[in-house]
Amino acid sequence: MVEASRRQVIVQKYGGSSVSNAEKIRTIARKICDRARTGVGMVVVVSAMGDSTDELIALAQAVTGEHVNPSLREMDTLLSTGELVSATLMAMAIHSFDQDVVSLSGQQAGIRTDATHGSARIASINNERLTRELDAGRVVIVAGFQGLDEAGDVTTLGRGGSDTTAVALAAALKADRCEIYTDVDGIYTTDPRIVPTARKLKEIGYEEMLEMASLGAKMNPRSIELAAVYQVPVLVASTFEDVPGTLIHGGEPVMELRRAVTGIALDKNVAKITVRGVMDRPGVAGGLLRPLAEAGISVDVIVQNTSDDGATDFTFTVSEAEAQRALELIKQQQETIAFRDVTSGGGLAKVSIVGTGMQNGPGYAATMFTALSSANVNIDMITTSEIRITCIVKRDDVPAAANALHTAFELDS
Amino acid sequence: MVEASRRQVIVQKYGGSSVSNAEKIRTIARKICDRARTGVGMVVVVSAMGDSTDELIALAQAVTGEHVNPSLREMDTLLSTGELVSATLMAMAIHSFDQDVVSLSGQQAGIRTDATHGSARIASINNERLTRELDAGRVVIVAGFQGLDEAGDVTTLGRGGSDTTAVALAAALKADRCEIYTDVDGIYTTDPRIVPTARKLKEIGYEEMLEMASLGAKMNPRSIELAAVYQVPVLVASTFEDVPGTLIHGGEPVMELRRAVTGIALDKNVAKITVRGVMDRPGVAGGLLRPLAEAGISVDVIVQNTSDDGATDFTFTVSEAEAQRALELIKQQQETIAFRDVTSGGGLAKVSIVGTGMQNGPGYAATMFTALSSANVNIDMITTSEIRITCIVKRDDVPAAANALHTAFELDS
Repeated sequence: MVEASRRQVIVQKYGGSSVSNAEKIRTIARKICDRARTGVGMVVVVSAMGDSTDELIALAQAVTGEHVNPSLREMDTLLSTGELVSATLMAMAIHSFDQDVVSLSGQQAGIRTDATHGSARIASINNERLTRELDAGRVVIVAGFQGLDEAGDVTTLGRGGSDTTAVALAAALKADRCEIYTDVDGIYTTDPRIVPTARKLKEIGYEEMLEMASLGAKMNPRSIELAAVYQVPVLVASTFEDVPGTLIHGGEPVMELRRAVTGIALDKNVAKITVRGVMDRPGVAGGLLRPLAEAGISVDVIVQNTSDDGATDFTFTVSEAEAQRALELIKQQQETIAFRDVTSGGGLAKVSIVGTGMQNGPGYAATMFTALSSANVNIDMITTSEIRITCIVKRDDVPAAANALHTAFELDS
Repeated sequence: MVEASRRQVIVQKYGGSSVSNAEKIRTIARKICDRARTGVGMVVVVSAMGDSTDELIALAQAVTGEHVNPSLREMDTLLSTGELVSATLMAMAIHSFDQDVVSLSGQQAGIRTDATHGSARIASINNERLTRELDAGRVVIVAGFQGLDEAGDVTTLGRGGSDTTAVALAAALKADRCEIYTDVDGIYTTDPRIVPTARKLKEIGYEEMLEMASLGAKMNPRSIELAAVYQVPVLVASTFEDVPGTLIHGGEPVMELRRAVTGIALDKNVAKITVRGVMDRPGVAGGLLRPLAEAGISVDVIVQNTSDDGATDFTFTVSEAEAQRALELIKQQQETIAFRDVTSGGGLAKVSIVGTGMQNGPGYAATMFTALSSANVNIDMITTSEIRITCIVKRDDVPAAANALHTAFELDS
């Protein structure tokens, strides 16, 4: 027991593009074997191969016909097969290199979830079998993105589900580190396709990463949140390029993090919905937004001005793809909640400066607004959190805004 | 409870070629809904779609490399996904026609097996969930070919596994009938491609069907055996053509079965292995054949002549594809079991007459040998069972032999 608990345990995760064919699987299998032979306990979470999930979704649509949504319960079992395929193939590849290995489904790995098919939350992890297999000297491959609910039915964890699996297993095993391998090689100060001087960060704090989650690494905020709660250090790195990645952790900020602003987050698919002449009573905002939450539409920035005449304007943003549905859901409430009219507008973007160092320092907002103004960027809406300031701007202004801010906050160097 | 037990329950099985694309799945789904709406309790076992199993095997071989056999445990989980995909798709299709439905994996259907990966045997079926879903008015789709062993690992049932699943579920549920839908429309007196006058049988007994298992219906003997033990009537019929099939049952033979010979079974891939000068001691035959059994090679006809000088010749047949491996395994034993030499020869076939009516009647062997002789077919080996006489002949002689026997035993009419 002492022996086992002293051994280093690493949880790795490989995304779909990393395991999209047999050759890539063999390449990764070889790396895993090399690492395992250093004596590290290895748990490896894999996503479905390349486009296999899309193919399964297309099949589901074909058998149900155009105008019917496939049953979410059936869809979950169907989609879970994609990860089972890549997990067993990875285990076979590792086995062919004479390394002891076993693949486990989410269920076998002890992952229990609630019954929300399509976007289940992990309720608990029974790590008994995982620990037994690790103690037996096996590399353990786990099918990502899936679990089992109380009724014994397969569930899936929704977008970014395999990242969540990896971080949750790392937490349950008290692993030394979770390593997310993907097709980008780390977290950047901002999108390098828009700001040529963007730099890769060596490390970043959980909270900053949460705010920056929409950046290059495409990591789901949910897994970052989980990592923060359980204090799991997460390395984001490239699968095939042997270059240093970015470590997301909660330790003392080192030199690099002392700079006030760590990065510029960009989100270019924003629409806003404005409800005018709302009676300003307690509970009105909640009432208006509840049907959107029930329809699974995320509401992001919310701005409401207090008013003197008892009526107010209420504005919020949603992703552009969900704007039309959100507008309809608001309109349907005009009978129960009094307001004058509702309008929507797209073509917007969110530009945010993020950094824990901002918490105690003044002047960041002023610097931001000045920089945007000098770049002729008009600000539509503003919101702030403890470690972030966000401006809603026209989508076409994003390059000018991002470059101006990157320079103004000395991220180019 | 009384209500539930009085309701008719049918277990159906659809093979891989019947569910090879979305259109076929929708066609079958519609038929299942029509049947379910008559009030019958429906459990439907499906195989993997068309060639999907072959594609998974090819992937497994690609990740393990040329000269390594993929781990059987991993292979079982990998292959089991094929049936999960078709089961969930079938459930979605049925759901789109507004019929209550649920898909279950082998595990969820309560199928427990031993741990022989690749060819597991069913140990028990806990029909609790199946019964609950049926009582709730749902059509239950079950992924065929798979179960769960005591360690909680997925197993597969080997060749013909989905037929076995269907018959076993029918037995566990005390279903009224098991219906096997396939790309042939029933059991014929012999192979219609070889004997143009071959006729489809309306019904056939379990024992006869066991002997004829290699005929057109391609049914696995294992599922017939299971059906016989639990007295489950099995209908073999065409998936898409609306013509009567063949009912396999254990009831009193009706008119048609009173004829002595029910059919002519043909197997055209036979090789024989002859071991000469074997010391005729008890246990020698068992000793020679044990390594073949351990290698999974089925030995079929076995002929041994008693001898006076203490040494004997020992001949057996195997399928042509396994002849070379069998020969090597026998040769390896020359050091431990004394024999003079061993030879093998292929290009043979088995021609059998089958019928329960033969049990009490004499003269069938004589009629068979005369008919073959008149057709200039030489007989190499002969074995008999209670309801079958088998001759090993040259493969090229099969058409002449089959047609001569079909006529001699009055099956043409």
